[in-house]
Amino acid sequence: MNQPLSRSAEQAQDAIDNERLQSSIAALATFGGRPDGGVSRETLTSIDLASRHYLIEQARALGCEVMVDDCANLFFRRAGRRNELPPVLTGSHGDTQPVGGKLDGAYGVVAGLEIIAALNDAGIDTLRPIEVVAWTNEEGSRFGPGTMGSSAFVDPSRLAGYLDAVDQSRVRFGDALQAALDSIPGVPRCEMQRPLSACVELHIEQGPVLERAGIPLGVVTGIQAVRWFTVTCHGAMAHAGTTPMDERRDAMAAAVSLAQKLYGFAATHAADQLRLTLGRWQVSPNSVNTIPGQVEFTVDVRCLDDSVLDRFEAFLRGLAADAGGSVSLERFFQRAPTHFPRPMLDLIQAAAGRACAQAGLPAPMPITSGAFHDAMYLADHCPTAMIFVPSKNGISHNAAEATDPHDLFLGVQALAYTVTALANQET
Amino acid sequence: MNQPLSRSAEQAQDAIDNERLQSSIAALATFGGRPDGGVSRETLTSIDLASRHYLIEQARALGCEVMVDDCANLFFRRAGRRNELPPVLTGSHGDTQPVGGKLDGAYGVVAGLEIIAALNDAGIDTLRPIEVVAWTNEEGSRFGPGTMGSSAFVDPSRLAGYLDAVDQSRVRFGDALQAALDSIPGVPRCEMQRPLSACVELHIEQGPVLERAGIPLGVVTGIQAVRWFTVTCHGAMAHAGTTPMDERRDAMAAAVSLAQKLYGFAATHAADQLRLTLGRWQVSPNSVNTIPGQVEFTVDVRCLDDSVLDRFEAFLRGLAADAGGSVSLERFFQRAPTHFPRPMLDLIQAAAGRACAQAGLPAPMPITSGAFHDAMYLADHCPTAMIFVPSKNGISHNAAEATDPHDLFLGVQALAYTVTALANQET
Repeated sequence: MNQPLSRSAEQAQDAIDNERLQSSIAALATFGGRPDGGVSRETLTSIDLASRHYLIEQARALGCEVMVDDCANLFFRRAGRRNELPPVLTGSHGDTQPVGGKLDGAYGVVAGLEIIAALNDAGIDTLRPIEVVAWTNEEGSRFGPGTMGSSAFVDPSRLAGYLDAVDQSRVRFGDALQAALDSIPGVPRCEMQRPLSACVELHIEQGPVLERAGIPLGVVTGIQAVRWFTVTCHGAMAHAGTTPMDERRDAMAAAVSLAQKLYGFAATHAADQLRLTLGRWQVSPNSVNTIPGQVEFTVDVRCLDDSVLDRFEAFLRGLAADAGGSVSLERFFQRAPTHFPRPMLDLIQAAAGRACAQAGLPAPMPITSGAFHDAMYLADHCPTAMIFVPSKNGISHNAAEATDPHDLFLGVQALAYTVTALANQET
Repeated sequence: MNQPLSRSAEQAQDAIDNERLQSSIAALATFGGRPDGGVSRETLTSIDLASRHYLIEQARALGCEVMVDDCANLFFRRAGRRNELPPVLTGSHGDTQPVGGKLDGAYGVVAGLEIIAALNDAGIDTLRPIEVVAWTNEEGSRFGPGTMGSSAFVDPSRLAGYLDAVDQSRVRFGDALQAALDSIPGVPRCEMQRPLSACVELHIEQGPVLERAGIPLGVVTGIQAVRWFTVTCHGAMAHAGTTPMDERRDAMAAAVSLAQKLYGFAATHAADQLRLTLGRWQVSPNSVNTIPGQVEFTVDVRCLDDSVLDRFEAFLRGLAADAGGSVSLERFFQRAPTHFPRPMLDLIQAAAGRACAQAGLPAPMPITSGAFHDAMYLADHCPTAMIFVPSKNGISHNAAEATDPHDLFLGVQALAYTVTALANQET
């Protein structure tokens, strides 16, 4: 893959309309918008479905062909001169955490539509088609695991394994998925695992690195490894007042002791940038005056170095084994580190560099993603990369999630150049 | 209060009819009986009202006068030689948890009626009247708080505060109470806070202590003090993958560390019979890949020695203070310990000792109640005490609640002796 200095890529970059971009971000944020400024738009909820209808209208107004695949991933296609060639894909996900912000995912989807609008304004046609995607269930908060849509797109055999996931109201993912597909009868179905020439995802950093460095754009070199576990401590429900301490099998006392040891392990591996989160807890029966009979909690552990995760998992399995039958352990998600290809990084460096230079700002920096993204799976399927913009105070998955509007503008400029250049590549 | 060796008390004890007792327990258990052997008879439900009509018929058949007070507590009175003297009260509550057993409460009520039947059979008349009570809403599962009937009886000013409690169907306690009173128009009203000469409650232990000791009867020396707290750890929600460990304010890490210290305190005070339960947890946002921004958990701590609870509370408040603003603490319930008077304990020891000796079983042991009982409030009003029988595997509030029938028989024998002796005391 070579990088001709692309005139049309520069034109596309310069045609990005910041005012339109900011208002598009605000408009999508009204779906699930909260008084505190956050957004609650978990995947396949009625709010998510409403936002999908809105995006379809926007894409059609821009002249795009709209398609959906078997995992309800939405594709908005702008034709190229040679439509038989595999398209260039950009975009992100439309869903949020139970309490999320305006940008995580949404920014990348809106950016894709802004690029199509800019190409239309500038009268630029590209060799290859360009498609903007809105992936289903990236967050994984309502139905686990996350990145269902993108992982199923690159390997459709995964979909069957997702259908029986249930949310806290016992709603099945498969049923929610069918309802979403039924809600857009007019949208034609497209194949999963279709050939793509390349994929670029624009996203907020969700961490403090770019802000601390005072640099507006990051060229993402890779994504750290992650593993998810469910730890279940089995005890015996009993009356809080009548059961002596030495007669108890208190599932919460066991869970607290185990959790304390896991935090201790993480503290001794800080240098390795190990990151540990015990985020979701379910206590049964969850009553003030009843000794917990069962406590289940999730373990999210991440590191750039997969061998550190191997050591963590061995430690965790050792603790469970020491507890005999009273602790059960399930690893329900695992992902090795992702490394994006050099030619893609060079192209993004050029695109982002031009945007920063024009704004008189510091050049983009290479950065690693601590979060996993849909691009992580697309990297298994076609040349893929990501662009990051800073997150204020490194905050995301939070109503306070925010990015300087000018940084958001620069990010879309860099994406426009990259996508247009890729869409004009013969091979 | 002196304890003359009472011939009639021995006669009453020996007149208890085990077959009649067991069939009476089975008969009351048909009101709300479940296929799994449990009983669902929450307070003031149609099932509870039907069981009250049944008890009224049984009491009248035994020649008792039936009375009801303003909290629908039912009293079955057997006349004495001097009816102007304050009566001796026994009994318990007729209601159960949503899923309870045949014995919790019901056993004490049936036992009272069995004693009256035995006194009738043996032709024994007593100096004082004897009354059997069925208290309203001891469990507190349908309308909170529990022990409404007994606490209102000893302090009628409490009743007004209970009337607006609502169940999950938004039914008001005050309305359910009026319906219960209206359903027994022929039953005369009696005064709350009436003088009583003494009160004795027979109950299942609901714990494993007697069974573990292999002893059929327990002389309850008192009821543990209890304090309930809510501990709230405040952190910052953030992304599990992108936030370095040294930049986190993880509410769960704080809660786990705090909980571990509390369990540690309890471990060092086991000798004081401190009982600690961290039973109800609420984690926000409770998502696998989001650092918890807030964790709230309840603390139920109990001990017969209130000074130990003072030290525990000081320790807990110290931990909260050390955490600065990041931990907040609320004590939302407190009850001082109940110590039953020595003369009552001595009388029960004699009565229970005779029953055990006749059966060739080990002598009764002193025991502390970890659970609340109506007797806890009666102790504020008159000389009060309790007798415990073992609970199989310490289980209650559960369909599996059970006690060896012979232990149930011995408990009623001990109660018969105690009540009869008290009913013959001049002062």
